[in-house]
Amino acid sequence: MEPRVSLVTLGVADLARSRAFYEALGWRSTSRPEDGVVFFQSGGMVLALWGRAELAADSGVTDAGGWGGVTPAWNVGSPAAVDAIIEMARAAGATIARVGAATAWGGYSGVFIDPDGHPWEIAHNPFWTLEPDGSIRLPDA
Amino acid sequence: MEPRVSLVTLGVADLARSRAFYEALGWRSTSRPEDGVVFFQSGGMVLALWGRAELAADSGVTDAGGWGGVTPAWNVGSPAAVDAIIEMARAAGATIARVGAATAWGGYSGVFIDPDGHPWEIAHNPFWTLEPDGSIRLPDA
Repeated sequence: MEPRVSLVTLGVADLARSRAFYEALGWRSTSRPEDGVVFFQSGGMVLALWGRAELAADSGVTDAGGWGGVTPAWNVGSPAAVDAIIEMARAAGATIARVGAATAWGGYSGVFIDPDGHPWEIAHNPFWTLEPDGSIRLPDA
Repeated sequence: MEPRVSLVTLGVADLARSRAFYEALGWRSTSRPEDGVVFFQSGGMVLALWGRAELAADSGVTDAGGWGGVTPAWNVGSPAAVDAIIEMARAAGATIARVGAATAWGGYSGVFIDPDGHPWEIAHNPFWTLEPDGSIRLPDA
């Protein structure tokens, strides 16, 4: 029973607005509005959008109302791809926390903040393998 | 440039404590203590542990100090596997927000809260395909 992150759910205020934002970045879903939740296939896992109050209740936690210590990243094949996604996110209504730039660890990354305040790092990491199918492989895994 | 969740980073207060907790659940890492970060390979993506203050600064956000609208899930092949993982988490020091039980959507799940307050849903979803390699496939993806 090897452990997995099978699903990551982002709590959102307006499901239609968030779906449109993520679709503008290329995510695709067949979820229907009446489902009350949006599922995006992401390689071998799933990214979900769900009402934040429902997610808090389902998760057995109290909502602190801001960022809570979890940041996803989307890794891409080049610094230029980082820049392109940051600009796509800006055009879709994201706040840009930092534009693409070289990082202290030898890569290149930028960060956008989605309409609900969820940050995403967009990164190029030359030390990790990015497989043709978009999977990431650590150098020693 | 198909979108991906390549990495999910959990901000933690004590890297060694959190690493031990996740290792007790079966995660494995070759990161060294002096790296200051822990990377776990998880199928085609990576789960990371990093100091919460560093993650907040890197993500360009203010830390609200509690849960912030993101919950990961680990999907498994049976209700019994859900129960087993909830008990592993309890033994490793997690708080159990809810033990395994049938859900309104027709599956079975429980939730544990890790030493830093991060909830994890452990779920069996009979409507999604769980591949032999641990990948999840939506019915229509």
